[in-house]
Amino acid sequence: MQSPVSTSPLRFAVIGLGAIGGYYGGLLARAGHDVHFLARRNFEAVRRDGLIVETTRGGFELPHVNVYQRAEEMPKCDVVLVTIKATDNAALTTILPRVLAEGGTTVLIQNGLGQEERLAPCALAGSVYAGLGFICAAKSGENRVVHSDYGTLRLAVYREGETAMRRHVGMDGLASLFVAAGIEIEREPEFLSARWKKLVWNIPFNGLSVVLGANTAELLQHAAALDLVQALMLEVIAASRAEGCEIPDGYALQMIDATLRMRPYFPSMYHDFEARRALELDAMYFVPVERARQAGAPMPRVQSLAQQLAFLADRRAASSVP
Amino acid sequence: MQSPVSTSPLRFAVIGLGAIGGYYGGLLARAGHDVHFLARRNFEAVRRDGLIVETTRGGFELPHVNVYQRAEEMPKCDVVLVTIKATDNAALTTILPRVLAEGGTTVLIQNGLGQEERLAPCALAGSVYAGLGFICAAKSGENRVVHSDYGTLRLAVYREGETAMRRHVGMDGLASLFVAAGIEIEREPEFLSARWKKLVWNIPFNGLSVVLGANTAELLQHAAALDLVQALMLEVIAASRAEGCEIPDGYALQMIDATLRMRPYFPSMYHDFEARRALELDAMYFVPVERARQAGAPMPRVQSLAQQLAFLADRRAASSVP
Repeated sequence: MQSPVSTSPLRFAVIGLGAIGGYYGGLLARAGHDVHFLARRNFEAVRRDGLIVETTRGGFELPHVNVYQRAEEMPKCDVVLVTIKATDNAALTTILPRVLAEGGTTVLIQNGLGQEERLAPCALAGSVYAGLGFICAAKSGENRVVHSDYGTLRLAVYREGETAMRRHVGMDGLASLFVAAGIEIEREPEFLSARWKKLVWNIPFNGLSVVLGANTAELLQHAAALDLVQALMLEVIAASRAEGCEIPDGYALQMIDATLRMRPYFPSMYHDFEARRALELDAMYFVPVERARQAGAPMPRVQSLAQQLAFLADRRAASSVP
Repeated sequence: MQSPVSTSPLRFAVIGLGAIGGYYGGLLARAGHDVHFLARRNFEAVRRDGLIVETTRGGFELPHVNVYQRAEEMPKCDVVLVTIKATDNAALTTILPRVLAEGGTTVLIQNGLGQEERLAPCALAGSVYAGLGFICAAKSGENRVVHSDYGTLRLAVYREGETAMRRHVGMDGLASLFVAAGIEIEREPEFLSARWKKLVWNIPFNGLSVVLGANTAELLQHAAALDLVQALMLEVIAASRAEGCEIPDGYALQMIDATLRMRPYFPSMYHDFEARRALELDAMYFVPVERARQAGAPMPRVQSLAQQLAFLADRRAASSVP
């Protein structure tokens, strides 16, 4: 199924080989693109055994993957997909300048708010796009990604680089190339709204999955929990409007309806917590809470949830490893 | 240590033989008062083995306790201390008229809001007092109460009965009698403030102890959890003021300081949850939340916590018994 022939002149880097990096990067590699993965924990396993991606439309194997343990060993790439957790973003200030070709494009496929602002200075003069993965996927073992639902990548322009046209095909071309690789793409016309809209879903379901130990279906089947999910969403929407976005309150019900149609799902923060990994509390909670407060639309429910998560995460970190 | 000689002409009923009923009723019985307990689960054990009360000032045993399984078997009493959970209050509409002597006094030693209003019609024409136990105590086995800290009972008048003077000694006399029995009493000048003030403590610590599985010390030692405790307290205080109470914001810090001086404590709701007993969610959370909303001072953080508790309680109830 894999084609060894490169179908585009673009070279891709994927920073992080978790579920998101493995899924999107894997699809690009399967389509014949020249993809280079930077991996940490699972470097050895992927180098030895390749990458297996199981999707709802069938699976595929990439027996040989260009995988690296250190950014210094990677070639310069035209497009860098950042798929590590926001908690690891400090490393990008050294990784990005090493891996990104001059005028190349950075796509930040992460949750939360404020990351593009922080990282744009490291993206050389290139374009910076926000990538929002509306996807249910999880790693299963070191070199296997299991995609269970959805998969759309929403793209929004944070910044178009001055030399963008020189080194890549621009947002339109990039989107077409993703689509040709089997990745569903939706264009988000407005960067800030795109980020906030993702938070409308992420904030209630990620946080409550940890605090209540519950998946999406369990939460939505319980009247009080459903009320809480909706109230959290409405706080996020109100905050986004205070920052100038035009997200209507009805977006909350849309998200709830969409989630009801999903298979029961434990979001990534639940898996991070269970696996004792760092939680993306700053990007997903504390930065939005602070920005909402500054914009004059405080989010007391979201803040409470964030404080609960901080307590649980710190206690778990302080306790002995199981 | 127990005196068989009655030192007052008053006959007491204690409805409920949990930690609160056992501690306050036990002290009254030890002082020689004629005390009659209505017990449910632990009736047999207490009838057979008596009641053991361990306090921070030493313990005592009451080998023979007037204990009943059914209200119909109890004598009419001048003072009825209600110490069951608010979740069982529906039973009081039949118990109170059976047990309370005409013109007798009902003392509702419970948490939450709205119970006196609901039960006053069942208290015949007698006085209704709110009793607020500032006490750390828990049952340890069927017939043993372990008191670990504090113990003050705050009393506030909800209603003075028309014939109050005929059958009992009034609030002053009752308070003196409690004090003589070794029960620390504080008079609360204002009923509504007394109830809300108790909620200032109860709402954060009871709820968070269940949701986060944490005791008072763990919560107060964590910066974010401490912020959350304080924010919850301030919502409660603001709501109380919207209902006309005069509780200053500084009361929150007072409560936090007092709690820091306590030994680490898991509040009653934590024990109820662990033991799979009903939680006092209506009296302690949903009624206050609704009254706050009606008074124009909504409590979003408190409501979120209440919704989380409802979810956890219902899921636990739906799961099989461990």
